[in-house]
Amino acid sequence: MTTAGTAPETAARSGSAAARQHSLREHNLELVARAVFEGPEPLSRAGVAASTGLARATVSTLVDQLVAAGLVRELPAVTGGRAGRPAVPLVPARRTVVGLGLEVNVDYLGVRALDLTGEVVAERVLPGSFHDSDPAAVLGRLGELAREVSHEVTAAGMTVAGGRLALPGLVDPRAGLLQVAPNLGWSSLEPVPLLGLDLDVRVANEAKLAALAELAGGSDVAAPDSFVFVSGDVGIGAAIVVDRRLFLGERGWNGEIGHVVVDPAGPRCSCGAFGCLEQYAGKEAMMRAAGLPPDAPLTDLVARLRAGDAELTAGRALGSALADFVNLIDIGTIVLGGAYTDLLPWLRVDVEAALGERVLAAPFVELQVRAAQAGPHAALTGGAREVLAQVLADPSAWV
Amino acid sequence: MTTAGTAPETAARSGSAAARQHSLREHNLELVARAVFEGPEPLSRAGVAASTGLARATVSTLVDQLVAAGLVRELPAVTGGRAGRPAVPLVPARRTVVGLGLEVNVDYLGVRALDLTGEVVAERVLPGSFHDSDPAAVLGRLGELAREVSHEVTAAGMTVAGGRLALPGLVDPRAGLLQVAPNLGWSSLEPVPLLGLDLDVRVANEAKLAALAELAGGSDVAAPDSFVFVSGDVGIGAAIVVDRRLFLGERGWNGEIGHVVVDPAGPRCSCGAFGCLEQYAGKEAMMRAAGLPPDAPLTDLVARLRAGDAELTAGRALGSALADFVNLIDIGTIVLGGAYTDLLPWLRVDVEAALGERVLAAPFVELQVRAAQAGPHAALTGGAREVLAQVLADPSAWV
Repeated sequence: MTTAGTAPETAARSGSAAARQHSLREHNLELVARAVFEGPEPLSRAGVAASTGLARATVSTLVDQLVAAGLVRELPAVTGGRAGRPAVPLVPARRTVVGLGLEVNVDYLGVRALDLTGEVVAERVLPGSFHDSDPAAVLGRLGELAREVSHEVTAAGMTVAGGRLALPGLVDPRAGLLQVAPNLGWSSLEPVPLLGLDLDVRVANEAKLAALAELAGGSDVAAPDSFVFVSGDVGIGAAIVVDRRLFLGERGWNGEIGHVVVDPAGPRCSCGAFGCLEQYAGKEAMMRAAGLPPDAPLTDLVARLRAGDAELTAGRALGSALADFVNLIDIGTIVLGGAYTDLLPWLRVDVEAALGERVLAAPFVELQVRAAQAGPHAALTGGAREVLAQVLADPSAWV
Repeated sequence: MTTAGTAPETAARSGSAAARQHSLREHNLELVARAVFEGPEPLSRAGVAASTGLARATVSTLVDQLVAAGLVRELPAVTGGRAGRPAVPLVPARRTVVGLGLEVNVDYLGVRALDLTGEVVAERVLPGSFHDSDPAAVLGRLGELAREVSHEVTAAGMTVAGGRLALPGLVDPRAGLLQVAPNLGWSSLEPVPLLGLDLDVRVANEAKLAALAELAGGSDVAAPDSFVFVSGDVGIGAAIVVDRRLFLGERGWNGEIGHVVVDPAGPRCSCGAFGCLEQYAGKEAMMRAAGLPPDAPLTDLVARLRAGDAELTAGRALGSALADFVNLIDIGTIVLGGAYTDLLPWLRVDVEAALGERVLAAPFVELQVRAAQAGPHAALTGGAREVLAQVLADPSAWV
C-alpha cells in the first residue's frame, strides 16, 4: 500500500509544480489585462511593465498574446517627448468578445450584448406582462431573443463569452436556482436549462446586477463608493454597495425593500403580507394611483405628471421605507434606478421630507438622493459586465 | 537646500530602522499574547513557539516579560507523557489589569470592571430615570461610580487600563462626541470630560458594545458567526455582526431599529417621528401596555406575565421591524438582548409569526430567534472587553 501510494504522490507533486508554473503565467496575464483595462489612461507596454512590476520582455509577450486573443487592441504608435521608440497605447479590444445580459422582469424581457469597451453591440427588449406566467414559455422566449442577439454578434465576427440572467427575486447563483420571484409567480425552479442556450449562463438578482452597472459609473458622474441602489419597477429591489463592493448578507437575499412595511393596515402584497412598499410605490401601484392602466408605459405616467394631470403619492411611502433602510444600515447615498430614475422630479420632495423626519442621523449627515446613471434596464448592462469581468479575471482561457 | 535636507532624511532613515526593530518586538509580543489568550487550551512556551512560528528562545523572553507585566500567569508545571522538562501552562493573568465598562442608559447607570480572565472584579449599577436629564449631573454621578470601582480594584492591587462609555444613541468615537440620544434628551456634547476621570475613556454605542460581549460567547452556547443583536430597553438599538465582525455602515450609525416604522398612524416618538418601534416595544411602552408604571422594574412585568395577569403585545411590532431588518440585510439569526432576554418566552410566538409572514426568504432559510447569552447590562461587559482587547493589541505598553 505504501509503495503503491508513492507514484501518484510523486505525480501529484510534479503536476503541482507544473500547475504553479501555469498559474504564474495565468496570474501575470491577469495582471497585464487589468493594467490595460482599469487604468485611467491607455498604457504602453512600458507603462504596463511599470504599473505591474513585471519585466518588460514578459509584458511584451503577454500583451502580444492578449492582442492575438482579441482582448486588447493596439492604437497607432505615438512619439513621446523623449528619444526612443514610439509607444503603442493599449486599449480594450472593440467588438471581439462580448458578454450577454439577459433579464426577465414583470413587464419586459431583455438581452443586451456588451463588448470589452463597454459598448452595447446588440440588444433586444420585448415589453410584455409576465405576472403569474409560465416559466418555460417565458424563458423559452427569452432564449430565442438571446439566440437572435448571439447570431447577430457572431455574424459580425464576435465571440459570446457567456451570460447572466437577471431575475426579480431570490436566487442562489451557485445552485442555479430561483427560490421565489413573487411578481412573476415563479418559485423553486432552475431557470437556465429553460433558456435552451448552448452558453454558460448564471442567474443573479436584478437589483444587484443593476447596482454593479451603476458602480461602473455613468457618462457624466462617477458612482459614489458606498450607496444603496433601489431598482423601482413593478417589484422593488435594492442592493447595498459598501466601499465599491456589494454587501450581500448571508446569502445575497438582502435588499428586499419592496417588502418593507409601510402600513400594516395596507393592501395585500404578491408576497402574501400586508402593506408592503410595492403596494404603494411599485410601478403598477403608481400607475393606478395616477388613473392609468397598470401596464401603461412609463412615458404615459411621466406625460401626465408633466401636464399636471396626476400626482405621485408614492414618494412618502418610498421615503418611509428608505428611512428604515438608512436607520438600519447607515449608508447615506441613495441611488434611484428603474422607473424611479425618470420619476425622481416628482418623488424627491416627499422622499427627502421622509428621510429628514425619520432618519435619526439626518441632522448630522448629508443624505443624498440621486438618479441612477446606468440607463434603462441597467441589470442587462450589469450582467454583461459581470461576464466580461470574468473573462478579464482569467484571460488565459482566451489565449 | 539640498544639503540641508540630507541630514533629517538620514536621521529619519536610521530612526525608522530603530522603529522597525522596536515594532518587530511589539509585533512579536502581540503574537505571543494572542497565542496565550486566544487558544482553546493553555499553551506552554513550547506550544506558543509552535503556534506562532517564533524561536523558542524569543518566546521564552517575551513570555517572561508578559508574566512580569502582569498580563500572563504561569500555572503549576505539568509533566507530559514524554521525557523532558515539565511544561508550564500559560493563561491570562488574574486580577492584575482591568478594563472598565461604563454606561448611561435611560433607567440605569453602570460601571463594571473585568480582568483579563473575563471575570467581573467590581461593579456598580444604579437604577434611576434619566429621561431629559442634565448630562453634567448624570455623567458626574457616573464618574463617581467609576471612581469607587477604580479605588476598589486599585486597593486590591489591580491597574485600570482605561474605559469605554456606552451611550444609547449616535456617537462619533474618534471625535469623542455624542450626536444624539433621544431618550436621554441629550445632543451634540462631549461626554468624557463630564465624567471627571483621570482615565483614557472613549465613547461607543450601547448596542454595538453589547453585541461584542455577545460575540465573546456565553457560558453554555457559542455565539453564531453572523447575527443581528437587538438590545431592547427603553430605547431599542441593534448591531449587525457579519463573520464575527461588526458591520458599521458609513459611520457606525446603523442598527437604529427603534426608529423603524411600525405604523405611520402610531404615537409620536422621542425622535420626533410617528409610529416608531420604540413606541410599541420599548420597555416603557411594554410596561404601560401591561398596566404597570413605565419605570417599574422588569421583574414586575415578568411576574405579571407569569401569573397570566398581563399580555405582551410588543411581539407583533418587534417581529414586523425585525422582518424589515432581515428583508434588507439577510442575516438569519436574531439575538434578543436587554429586557428582551427575559421577555422572550412571551415574545417568541408573535416574533416568529411576523418573520414567517413578512420575510421573503422565510420558506428557504431557518430564521432563528435566540435569547442573548451575555447577561444583564451586556454593554458594560463589551466595553470592558474592548479596553482589554486594546491592551492585548499592544502589550508592549505594559512591559
